[in-house]
Amino acid sequence: MKKPLILITNDDGYQAAGIQALARAVSAIGDVYIVAPDGARSGAACAITSTQPVSFQKLTSSDGEPIQVFSCTGTPVDCVKLALEQIVPRKPDLLLSGINHGDNASVSVHYSGTMGAVFEGCMKEIPSIGISLYLHRGQRYEDYPVSEDTLDAVASLCHRVIDQGLPQDVCLNINLPTAHVFRGWQVCRQARGRWSAEWASASNPHGLNAFWLTGHFTDLEPDAQDTDFSALRAGYASIVPITIDMTAFEAMNQINELLRAR
Amino acid sequence: MKKPLILITNDDGYQAAGIQALARAVSAIGDVYIVAPDGARSGAACAITSTQPVSFQKLTSSDGEPIQVFSCTGTPVDCVKLALEQIVPRKPDLLLSGINHGDNASVSVHYSGTMGAVFEGCMKEIPSIGISLYLHRGQRYEDYPVSEDTLDAVASLCHRVIDQGLPQDVCLNINLPTAHVFRGWQVCRQARGRWSAEWASASNPHGLNAFWLTGHFTDLEPDAQDTDFSALRAGYASIVPITIDMTAFEAMNQINELLRAR
Repeated sequence: MKKPLILITNDDGYQAAGIQALARAVSAIGDVYIVAPDGARSGAACAITSTQPVSFQKLTSSDGEPIQVFSCTGTPVDCVKLALEQIVPRKPDLLLSGINHGDNASVSVHYSGTMGAVFEGCMKEIPSIGISLYLHRGQRYEDYPVSEDTLDAVASLCHRVIDQGLPQDVCLNINLPTAHVFRGWQVCRQARGRWSAEWASASNPHGLNAFWLTGHFTDLEPDAQDTDFSALRAGYASIVPITIDMTAFEAMNQINELLRAR
Repeated sequence: MKKPLILITNDDGYQAAGIQALARAVSAIGDVYIVAPDGARSGAACAITSTQPVSFQKLTSSDGEPIQVFSCTGTPVDCVKLALEQIVPRKPDLLLSGINHGDNASVSVHYSGTMGAVFEGCMKEIPSIGISLYLHRGQRYEDYPVSEDTLDAVASLCHRVIDQGLPQDVCLNINLPTAHVFRGWQVCRQARGRWSAEWASASNPHGLNAFWLTGHFTDLEPDAQDTDFSALRAGYASIVPITIDMTAFEAMNQINELLRAR
């Protein structure tokens, strides 16, 4: 029997410490293909490249290596689409994205290139998991690497997902704490949150109205016990099951009433 | 009493025919600010610009004009974020995005820059509506413009939404048919769908593995009667209420069981 095929991408680029740690952690349970951007694509969300061609190149020299590495000029979603049609030898048994340098909890799931790749895998009916590291502002991944204990827990979870699959149209958004000892998983919901104060003036010699994107995040449910941020604050790894069906079913009646109103 | 403030953006650029038609259609019910990309950003999803500054410039010459126009170097989401903090005089009463040249039904909602801007407005607690035109492949917007009858229906809906608001964390994904006479709205769910055959080889003189993104869309529920695509096929305008909370609540038990399994 063939080993499971695991496709890994990210939005920090193939050289990032996080994707390398993740690939090593799961290389015992499957044949690993890394197909990742050639550099940073943070905040790429589900963006696709439509105005220019996308290219890729193989970086590993031998077909026999346990981790094959390809770099791609496109977005994380482009990487997944290109990998599936042009690179991997068969449909992957698992798609992983990460480990992202910084969390993708709450509404950050919408901006995340890490999670964009995961949605793409889910749309292609591949069990797909995004993994991000909850760093505080100013913390570098290199100083707070994911512990071996945590990586073991991630590999164990991946093994179960390969074995049992995930529900139709559902993928996982995992955020890991930096703690040395793995405390456990909490299955939770996406916290309500808001970004504000998002622009810093970019001084420039041209008199442009130019700004750098920055921002302050506020958890709108600081007392909740069942959100991704509450799990992370308590030292647990959060798992939010995410659906790619964005229909707000419970709002349908209200919209119908709004249409009927005079 | 002040007129409502309506912020309009898109992913086709401020010069696009669709955004201009939309601005004219709602200019009678509010003060309109167009803050849109300086060119095409199709497929930008919720992408944000984090690696370079974003700038904008005012294109209208007089403060008294009923439609103020600003162009922005960023993504649709950047446009919304920048407009809210740096451009509009107060919080908008309505955010519109579109009219997009091409539909954003089914899973295309995930790639759409049009809808990315709408999610951003929704996260900022502004009633937000994305509007796209269901064109068949090869049809140009200029040859199939949205009819006056349809634009009247859109303006009427906008008026109601300004008046009554939308449920918390819910925005609207509207797709319009090209028919001359407006047949009516259908509130529906996002169709299950899949893109395939997504790459065409890009011949090049450098021997690169280079590809253009293209693709074929398949509606996985061709016999459904309650999806956005079924509404469009029947000649109706589809309204899918969309939630920015992507939690798959009904999958939580199954994920907990997966964690408990040995």
